Amino acid sequence: MNALGKHLLLELKDCDKEVLNDIGFLKGALLAAATECGATVLGESFHQFKPQGISGVMVIAESHLFIHTWPEYGYAAADIFTCGNSVQPVKAAQILIRKLGAKNHSIIEIQRGILDTQ
Amino acid sequence: MNALGKHLLLELKDCDKEVLNDIGFLKGALLAAATECGATVLGESFHQFKPQGISGVMVIAESHLFIHTWPEYGYAAADIFTCGNSVQPVKAAQILIRKLGAKNHSIIEIQRGILDTQ
Repeated sequence: MNALGKHLLLELKDCDKEVLNDIGFLKGALLAAATECGATVLGESFHQFKPQGISGVMVIAESHLFIHTWPEYGYAAADIFTCGNSVQPVKAAQILIRKLGAKNHSIIEIQRGILDTQ
Repeated sequence: MNALGKHLLLELKDCDKEVLNDIGFLKGALLAAATECGATVLGESFHQFKPQGISGVMVIAESHLFIHTWPEYGYAAADIFTCGNSVQPVKAAQILIRKLGAKNHSIIEIQRGILDTQ
């Protein structure tokens, strides 16, 4: 049974709190995760919240990566949604876990677009 | 047990194929979903693929909405990620289901950021 998309949901806990509030660092981390897993970046949208926290999305030709951070808890939610077989989303996940210094994490993988007509 | 974020994953099947390839329509649909559920739009990034298919992300103050469409299958994957209690993500989901003419759909709800320290 084939799925159109593979969706990884990352719970990143006990991260480096400083990097969770550093928009330049997070842009670089998502860019590294996207390019090193073989994706092509098409666009991005990042926002810094007050007093803290960042939301960022990177649209890739193979779907998207996003991150939302709560520096006060050392927590970030990140998603890696890919389609096709040319990219390795698990590699992107490993890069984010390492760059954010997440001492605890979990990953849920969900198949998207399982269709009868494929 | 409190979660920082509520994440709805929508599988939208048997949609109106024409609207799935209409970037203006999809921008309007996501904007309507965001605003009518009470969210504040901060930014967007939409891309049209050849020969068909659209990826679009709308960053909101309360997190994000995204959509990826496969017009050839009448299928779209959409996510609604919200934090706080000021928005009603289920209302946004209902708007997308209706606007895309999805004859079949499913919704998975995932709690994000369940922390021991909250």
